[in-house]
Amino acid sequence: MSKRIAGPEIERLIQLLAKVPGLGPRSARRAALHLIKKKEQLLAPLAAAMGEAVDKVRVCSTCGNVDTSDPCMICTDPRRDPTTIIVVEDVSDLWALERAGAMNAKFHVLGGTLSPLDGVGPDQLTIRQLVTRIAEGGVSEVILAVNATVEGQTTAHYLTDQLSGFDVKVTRLAHGVPVGGELDYLDEGTLSAALKSRTVF
Amino acid sequence: MSKRIAGPEIERLIQLLAKVPGLGPRSARRAALHLIKKKEQLLAPLAAAMGEAVDKVRVCSTCGNVDTSDPCMICTDPRRDPTTIIVVEDVSDLWALERAGAMNAKFHVLGGTLSPLDGVGPDQLTIRQLVTRIAEGGVSEVILAVNATVEGQTTAHYLTDQLSGFDVKVTRLAHGVPVGGELDYLDEGTLSAALKSRTVF
Repeated sequence: MSKRIAGPEIERLIQLLAKVPGLGPRSARRAALHLIKKKEQLLAPLAAAMGEAVDKVRVCSTCGNVDTSDPCMICTDPRRDPTTIIVVEDVSDLWALERAGAMNAKFHVLGGTLSPLDGVGPDQLTIRQLVTRIAEGGVSEVILAVNATVEGQTTAHYLTDQLSGFDVKVTRLAHGVPVGGELDYLDEGTLSAALKSRTVF
Repeated sequence: MSKRIAGPEIERLIQLLAKVPGLGPRSARRAALHLIKKKEQLLAPLAAAMGEAVDKVRVCSTCGNVDTSDPCMICTDPRRDPTTIIVVEDVSDLWALERAGAMNAKFHVLGGTLSPLDGVGPDQLTIRQLVTRIAEGGVSEVILAVNATVEGQTTAHYLTDQLSGFDVKVTRLAHGVPVGGELDYLDEGTLSAALKSRTVF
């Protein structure tokens, strides 16, 4: 809004909403208006939920996950296999793997990837905490579920080095054709990897 | 999240964010994670701004606009021409016209359009308040800036009827080619209207 047409509270709400990923300046206005119109059904509960998140959400000191308890729900879950740790870059990756629901293991969130040029060394990530968890024993496999990017693979190599002194199997995710994917749209690297890792039909 | 992987507070935040227009279930997760990571810079201020909006935002009893004061900032602005009232369906239309910045007039927000099948009659809109404003005098022109839809035009006709007894000029927005628009993509109705209302070059 170029001209002031509403109190500063509404303009501030729009400005802050515009910083939420997925919303831009235009959709932030639309969202603000919708929230204001649904004051009791949506705006008030959302304000309360956000306030509660501000008060309660913390980073798990064991695995780096975000939750309302520390240690987090995954770390304290007795039904999860404590012998396998899946290492991910970010909490969003943890959520993605949990949605897939393929493994009932514990997690470790690195908080990013090694990137010396950006000033991200091993101490900026939770690598020391991971080594400590392995050193405490009871873990037989570490699955490096980092992204298949240069930074992700560099970090994976560094982690493999750090863990080489322990009696633990270090594995990584398989490369291959995405389920539902069409060969025509895939890059050569993926196709080569899929051919190399072919399995008996 | 199919399986419980975080406290109920985070899941509730995601559920509520998914109801914000512009966000879906997937982007709500991404937004929630971003907000949690930027707890102090974004989540806390947004929670506060929403809480303040819940407390302070109200509908202007004069014009139907939403603002943190009643009468609203537009109704109380002494620099606006009080002899012209622009009638719009929704607050979003008011904001859109204000962004255009083409007129320095007062507004009247109907709150929708007449739609007998949906149970929206004149009493569900702010038509009586508009008639009262005109009856109080001092207004020389009412611009019906309703949408160019069947419902909008029906409502415009009804309003023209209601205002016919007053000494007030009732006008409507011009139909024509949108600025930057290509004729090839326009419907016949718009093209006919643009031809009919042609002006001297």
